[in-house]
Amino acid sequence: MSLTAQFATRMTRMKASEIRELLKLLDQPGMLSFAGGIPDPALFPVEAFGKALQDALSPDHQAQALQYSVSEGYLPLRQWIVSYMAGLGVTCRPENVVITSGSQQALDYLGKLFLSPGDTALVGWPTYLGALAAFNAYEPSYDRLRLGEDRRPEQYASAAEAAGGRVKFAYLSPDFDNPTGLTLTRAERVQVLETAAALDCAVIEDSAYQALRYDGDPVPPLLALEQDQNGGNLEACRTIYCGTFSKTLSPGLRVGWVVAAEPVISQLVLMKQASDLHSPTLNQIAIHQVAEALFERHTAGLRQAYGRRRDAMLVALKEHMPPGVSWTRPEGGMFIWVTLPEGLNGAALLETALAVEKVAFVPGQAFFADGSGENSLRLSFSNSTEAEIAEGMARLGRVLQAAR
Amino acid sequence: MSLTAQFATRMTRMKASEIRELLKLLDQPGMLSFAGGIPDPALFPVEAFGKALQDALSPDHQAQALQYSVSEGYLPLRQWIVSYMAGLGVTCRPENVVITSGSQQALDYLGKLFLSPGDTALVGWPTYLGALAAFNAYEPSYDRLRLGEDRRPEQYASAAEAAGGRVKFAYLSPDFDNPTGLTLTRAERVQVLETAAALDCAVIEDSAYQALRYDGDPVPPLLALEQDQNGGNLEACRTIYCGTFSKTLSPGLRVGWVVAAEPVISQLVLMKQASDLHSPTLNQIAIHQVAEALFERHTAGLRQAYGRRRDAMLVALKEHMPPGVSWTRPEGGMFIWVTLPEGLNGAALLETALAVEKVAFVPGQAFFADGSGENSLRLSFSNSTEAEIAEGMARLGRVLQAAR
Repeated sequence: MSLTAQFATRMTRMKASEIRELLKLLDQPGMLSFAGGIPDPALFPVEAFGKALQDALSPDHQAQALQYSVSEGYLPLRQWIVSYMAGLGVTCRPENVVITSGSQQALDYLGKLFLSPGDTALVGWPTYLGALAAFNAYEPSYDRLRLGEDRRPEQYASAAEAAGGRVKFAYLSPDFDNPTGLTLTRAERVQVLETAAALDCAVIEDSAYQALRYDGDPVPPLLALEQDQNGGNLEACRTIYCGTFSKTLSPGLRVGWVVAAEPVISQLVLMKQASDLHSPTLNQIAIHQVAEALFERHTAGLRQAYGRRRDAMLVALKEHMPPGVSWTRPEGGMFIWVTLPEGLNGAALLETALAVEKVAFVPGQAFFADGSGENSLRLSFSNSTEAEIAEGMARLGRVLQAAR
Repeated sequence: MSLTAQFATRMTRMKASEIRELLKLLDQPGMLSFAGGIPDPALFPVEAFGKALQDALSPDHQAQALQYSVSEGYLPLRQWIVSYMAGLGVTCRPENVVITSGSQQALDYLGKLFLSPGDTALVGWPTYLGALAAFNAYEPSYDRLRLGEDRRPEQYASAAEAAGGRVKFAYLSPDFDNPTGLTLTRAERVQVLETAAALDCAVIEDSAYQALRYDGDPVPPLLALEQDQNGGNLEACRTIYCGTFSKTLSPGLRVGWVVAAEPVISQLVLMKQASDLHSPTLNQIAIHQVAEALFERHTAGLRQAYGRRRDAMLVALKEHMPPGVSWTRPEGGMFIWVTLPEGLNGAALLETALAVEKVAFVPGQAFFADGSGENSLRLSFSNSTEAEIAEGMARLGRVLQAAR
């Protein structure tokens, strides 16, 4: 099953027979897909990885690169992350860092660490589908994390109690989140920290897109704000920061990280040891060398390229969307979130879009823990050229026009 | 923390202060360690990996190698595994194969799939420590899988009921297991299948060392025997086969696999998607190319080298062990299991061994789900030269002589 097909499958929750029909359509020549939230492979730093892998297999490093290693991760990479985090305003030590196989694995471990069946996770409505998939294994209830609204912590607490547990964490992706592309203001971040403090629960800060800001001013991570509140003491922080190289250097190498207070990291290291021993040694060594050599320069190039694609999509949406359709204006990341007039259904539209106009997107419903959000869809601009984006939005416009 | 130190730590279950003292000793020059069950890095097929990685980053493959991929794993690798399994007497299709990050991850997923708190897992006394670590996360009870003994399935079932659940699987490593080095006879394998059938539970066949047989006749995998019983129908089999490239090509790349009936594989693929999306694409491509190029030739070389080391250890044990000490004679793998006279304690001896004789091993107690096995220890011969083995066993002999 192709990647896009797999994504579409889990998004639309169709029956197997329906999926098979869908797959035939996705394989059609001329299909323009804005479905998968994946980086453009033409922008991977291939040459740097080639050199890094060659160096990793040189006589000095080969025994280490191909051998078992420690569960917490490759120390030089953890040290690089310490200095990267310092640039974001977080002061930490290598003991505060564990390497995971992408941030997806961090979400799985954190679900395992915190959730017992019936406990509550606070998430956005919508939120990252992969987070719901990871947490679902531990059978939580979900409650909607409301920002800028007057919902008191006691209300979350009593709802969680009624669901049979406690609020164990708030999960959010504060920068250009998947799927909405929206960014939390500083005030909203502080509000999340206050709510979590009142509930005495953790905050899981999924920072997958943080390095991909195209305009506007950076907002400090929740972990930086909380550390500041705590007089610099990371060990007193409840925020758990999840980072990844998947959106910046390569998703296929599966290298991410978590930064948190040492007792949390110790627990995650034990989990890592029991679940897959460690992330591949070779990959950690290669990512370290490439990050060391060109992280800042390379992500500057990505910001330029993806920023132009975002602009192209915003322009094309304005040109082609019929009245009653609205969309977000992300300052970074890979996604634009489209809200359709009430009564339209993204999943139903997808079938028409694939069959008639050969354009693919992700129906929004799958991103809602309560199954709402029928009249929404997610567009990714990261893996299409500006010309494809212009043509694709014209097609989408015709689909929506016809559905009115 | 070094690898060996980490292993020793979890083996001996010491307090943090004791561990710190131990670490100082392990770092001493001249230490001979037979503790870690790790391959000899000098025997890694470095050149072949270098070429495979270079090819993976060639213009034809680079976009795929560094990109997200499907959760079930790289199809050509799954096809290679299909043909490898055919050589072991198992007929399967790529749909029966999922790629995992080492077989450790398979054990974690299978624990997650089968175990609810209070359920029972049947395991050997002793058994692979990493399996206990993986399963422990799902809070099972353990019962001792007795082979060649007259224990009826009803007895397992009623013990499991008394523990608050059901027997969900029997876990075993039939070839040269970790830690004993012992191999199950064909009759014992059939007995396991009969017991599992009577209990209607799964069988987890951990085949990590299968390719490393130094003498004696191969015994078919339990999955092959069961498929044969079922007239060739894999879909009717309860055995779940876990393989890995960690002992043959490279542990640091973290590539393993599971072969089972399609509904089990589908479940594992969903788990994989939720827990880390997929194993690294680059690693799967590289392992595939190296396996395709030289798996048989390379493992023949390993069998020669490790076989000589096993022989050297058997000779040295015979020369240096005091009366009352016995040990296994493995036909393959990496381990020899030593039983000491009653009253001696492996963990206590380790401290003396490290401090006085500079020789390391793993105390046997950690491999017992019930904490018994005090008078045993595990020796690995895979990562030491024949000269180091001779000297190390002389040292161990002195430690045991002094303890009598």
